[in-house]
Amino acid sequence: MEFRKVSDAVVKRMPRYYRHLKILEEHGVDCVSSNALAKQLGLTASQVRQDFNCFGGFGQQGYGYNVRKLRREIRSILAIDKEYSAIVVGAGNIGTAITYFGGFQEEGIHIVALFDVDPDLIGKAVNDKPVLDVKGLGQYIKDHDIDIGIITARRSVAQQLADSMAGAGIKGIWNFAPVDIVSKVPVENVHLFDSISNLTYKIGKNKITD
Amino acid sequence: MEFRKVSDAVVKRMPRYYRHLKILEEHGVDCVSSNALAKQLGLTASQVRQDFNCFGGFGQQGYGYNVRKLRREIRSILAIDKEYSAIVVGAGNIGTAITYFGGFQEEGIHIVALFDVDPDLIGKAVNDKPVLDVKGLGQYIKDHDIDIGIITARRSVAQQLADSMAGAGIKGIWNFAPVDIVSKVPVENVHLFDSISNLTYKIGKNKITD
Repeated sequence: MEFRKVSDAVVKRMPRYYRHLKILEEHGVDCVSSNALAKQLGLTASQVRQDFNCFGGFGQQGYGYNVRKLRREIRSILAIDKEYSAIVVGAGNIGTAITYFGGFQEEGIHIVALFDVDPDLIGKAVNDKPVLDVKGLGQYIKDHDIDIGIITARRSVAQQLADSMAGAGIKGIWNFAPVDIVSKVPVENVHLFDSISNLTYKIGKNKITD
Repeated sequence: MEFRKVSDAVVKRMPRYYRHLKILEEHGVDCVSSNALAKQLGLTASQVRQDFNCFGGFGQQGYGYNVRKLRREIRSILAIDKEYSAIVVGAGNIGTAITYFGGFQEEGIHIVALFDVDPDLIGKAVNDKPVLDVKGLGQYIKDHDIDIGIITARRSVAQQLADSMAGAGIKGIWNFAPVDIVSKVPVENVHLFDSISNLTYKIGKNKITD
């Protein structure tokens, strides 16, 4: 399959295209040129064409792209056209927010349970999903064939949680703990500290320029 | 100042160094070589040295880096050695989670208020911070000299909120809405959808390889 050679940078732009095409579709736009897409996204038209060529095109020269079809193709490339079951490990504030967040359900990612060590949280429910004892984590993943493990637990236990989830057959890990998880399964990290400190860096630079 | 020429890629690695040095410091490590740092972070030693050279070094050839000093220097480069006041616009689940999240307080970022349109939320408090009417957003920023605006509101209003915050003198915007904000002030986006769809992409690729 051709798209296994695609660079990380191209893959990272795909969700941006997807989000934008979704907005165009909602606004009733049927067709969009690479020029228009590039302008709207702050890219060059040749970059847009190159990006789409990595995955085999999608367009007819001179006709622009069919918005709906293009969005469906990107959806399939990103593999968000499938259904995923997910669990959240760490039923604190971030874990709770993610469990309530509607944006993933829409895209086929279904959180089915949360896990925690805190006896005060175990047995409760978050957005109607049970909070279970983390001791049963591995068995639960096996029994329910869980696809995605979302780590919102403390930094000090994150790697260990990732290891036990990967051992139990999880297919991917989405990590919010401030540590770079290493795993045999795919990992995506959301490092909130890195993001806010990139912002303070830019603010600091701006002040120097003033 | 030399560090205004530093590439985005280098700046983006700085928080990773910072987080790692913090762990080393907590474990009582006084000194670390570029080789050891590289190994621990999955980089090459020459990349580590190059990265630090962008900011003028920090090390003495052959002696390794003083962990505490290096962390303090990076802290200063990232401008997280200063205090920032922040507001959260959108008092829903993500906004609430961020308000409770301890990680930013530690680094000098203090959330002082939340804003919303929902009359059921206005007048309440989240982690002892008041939820105020979004109508008063601009005035509040001016009156309290707020540094950072955190957008956790709906996509459709995010750009407009960014514009009114920038107009009122905010210094930077941290955006969680699934849209790429354009502003005259620095913006950092946290796109949760992009992150999870990069994960599903990798999971999808893995299945093909199986």
